[in-house]
Amino acid sequence: MKDQPPSSITDNQSELLLLVTGGTLDKNYNALSGELEFSSTHAPQMLSQANASLHSVQTLMLKDSLDMTQADRKTIAEACIKALQQKIVITHGTDTMTDTAHYLKACPELADKVIVLTGAMRPFMLGDSDASFNLGTAIMAANLSENGVYITMNGIRFEADDVCKNKSLGIFERLRR
Amino acid sequence: MKDQPPSSITDNQSELLLLVTGGTLDKNYNALSGELEFSSTHAPQMLSQANASLHSVQTLMLKDSLDMTQADRKTIAEACIKALQQKIVITHGTDTMTDTAHYLKACPELADKVIVLTGAMRPFMLGDSDASFNLGTAIMAANLSENGVYITMNGIRFEADDVCKNKSLGIFERLRR
Amino acid sequence: MKDQPPSSITDNQSELLLLVTGGTLDKNYNALSGELEFSSTHAPQMLSQANASLHSVQTLMLKDSLDMTQADRKTIAEACIKALQQKIVITHGTDTMTDTAHYLKACPELADKVIVLTGAMRPFMLGDSDASFNLGTAIMAANLSENGVYITMNGIRFEADDVCKNKSLGIFERLRR
Amino acid sequence: MKDQPPSSITDNQSELLLLVTGGTLDKNYNALSGELEFSSTHAPQMLSQANASLHSVQTLMLKDSLDMTQADRKTIAEACIKALQQKIVITHGTDTMTDTAHYLKACPELADKVIVLTGAMRPFMLGDSDASFNLGTAIMAANLSENGVYITMNGIRFEADDVCKNKSLGIFERLRR
Repeated sequence: MKDQPPSSITDNQSELLLLVTGGTLDKNYNALSGELEFSSTHAPQMLSQANASLHSVQTLMLKDSLDMTQADRKTIAEACIKALQQKIVITHGTDTMTDTAHYLKACPELADKVIVLTGAMRPFMLGDSDASFNLGTAIMAANLSENGVYITMNGIRFEADDVCKNKSLGIFERLRR
Repeated sequence: MKDQPPSSITDNQSELLLLVTGGTLDKNYNALSGELEFSSTHAPQMLSQANASLHSVQTLMLKDSLDMTQADRKTIAEACIKALQQKIVITHGTDTMTDTAHYLKACPELADKVIVLTGAMRPFMLGDSDASFNLGTAIMAANLSENGVYITMNGIRFEADDVCKNKSLGIFERLRR
Repeated sequence: MKDQPPSSITDNQSELLLLVTGGTLDKNYNALSGELEFSSTHAPQMLSQANASLHSVQTLMLKDSLDMTQADRKTIAEACIKALQQKIVITHGTDTMTDTAHYLKACPELADKVIVLTGAMRPFMLGDSDASFNLGTAIMAANLSENGVYITMNGIRFEADDVCKNKSLGIFERLRR
Repeated sequence: MKDQPPSSITDNQSELLLLVTGGTLDKNYNALSGELEFSSTHAPQMLSQANASLHSVQTLMLKDSLDMTQADRKTIAEACIKALQQKIVITHGTDTMTDTAHYLKACPELADKVIVLTGAMRPFMLGDSDASFNLGTAIMAANLSENGVYITMNGIRFEADDVCKNKSLGIFERLRR
């Protein structure tokens, strides 16, 4: 902790970048096809609901996380490296969120950034969703955490190397209890 | 920071207490009277939506914060002092949220607790609300902050003595820019 | 019935006029004032949700029906008289909906029109509302009824002179059982 | 018209039966599977929102209408025949709603009933849905129509033998313009 510059823990949200990659959070129902699909990100609407609209939002892709490839993860990592902001929140599908977290943690160029991944179990546009709560936790974790890669789900901040999705319960859990 | 015990910054949410005092967040529309009223708190429903249901929830009162008295603030402070939990989130009306934050900050018995107040500009039950986002930020701030009294609104964590509500914009701002 | 022209009972909705006068149906929560207020009508959004967008929509006023005067009722009657359409649905506050229905029924110039008043007990924009259901019943009653003045609430079509609002239950009832 | 018994056009809703067969209207998102699924019908909740709770509700099946067989249609017809009520509303998937309407229209035992089929393009539980509007139109059409089999969608009442679904637009249209 003593090696961190004081600015690494700050409330200043103006420097936060929101990277959108898709996932359940951004899906919506297509009434013509009867399928859940991506059209555009709803992150700006979520930030606007909370009057938290100072953040930069960049849509990298809109993908189901089961369809994400290592090439996609490289794209995400490069966007994080290029970002002027030190604090980055990434919205991501839950099924491979931990894989992307591991990938980012392994990038030495990202050692001086705070990166927080989050997502949702129910799409924002379908109501009764966990999306806004989770986005709130991720933004706050990005504001208050030391450099590193984290996941926030279920109101908990997890370290990238100490978390897995419990698919039968639909929640995230620590590996080490 | 060096004087803080290690447990003061932790992800362990099981020790978090949610104190409900009312405010816009918990109001709902009464179809018979045509008025916004309190019936019961919706905090458990909000936590359940996010699968973040491990928290203890205690309803102290359901009051519009404009109706809050110093006696009410004393009740809130006493509940915080009695709480077994070190981390406490308080849902509160936005109009006098800073007054209650000042009151709690002035209690020497609360110096070893993390207390985060939050609320909403639009009731949770009316849809398109900031309530879930704000509750997410408050829980994460309680998990990640050093001892002290804070307000989280608009995705920002404010110190109790450095925040005011801008009533014409409907947002919270720092006193010192 | 034999005096009615055949066109008085038809499915042709293209000739239906929707007159907006306000009422709970169109209120929304103002986050700055903390009050329920009118900004604009949500009738087009309701029709669009149902892909029933062929109707003409005309906003006459946005008033709480408790504030409606006889001058307002005259304005509504004149709009009905001037309307090219034979079928007219009027959205209206529930508290004086029956007064306006009586006023319109007493206009001999409206004897060759179908006029259906409806409203809502909970605003459309607050979710969990009866507004869309009620608008659906009113449009269908306008399409299928003989000339006359009606109210549709709670899935029932009432004659203008055989209905009252039961304010303690929040429902509409017939005078003659 | 003169051959109809007076009871065939009435506002008395207490004799209306609501038969649930499934369809998009009753689907919901399963957060664990990420799929749209049936759990139970939401028709009682829709009626309750509109304070129109006097109807009898009977769930026959919860099926995507693309999966409906002739055996299912026979089950629906038998339920209509057995029903004590003369007025029947059937919620049904939109893709084969016209097939079921044709099937029912061909049943001579149903010649003295009013049967109205309706459904939704977007599930009720996903918000921004056409379900409540459509249910309102169907109940009103059942209350106001002469004996026969009808479909109500998009605010229009269609005769069973004069309607098709335009799948590219997501609306229902008359065959004969």
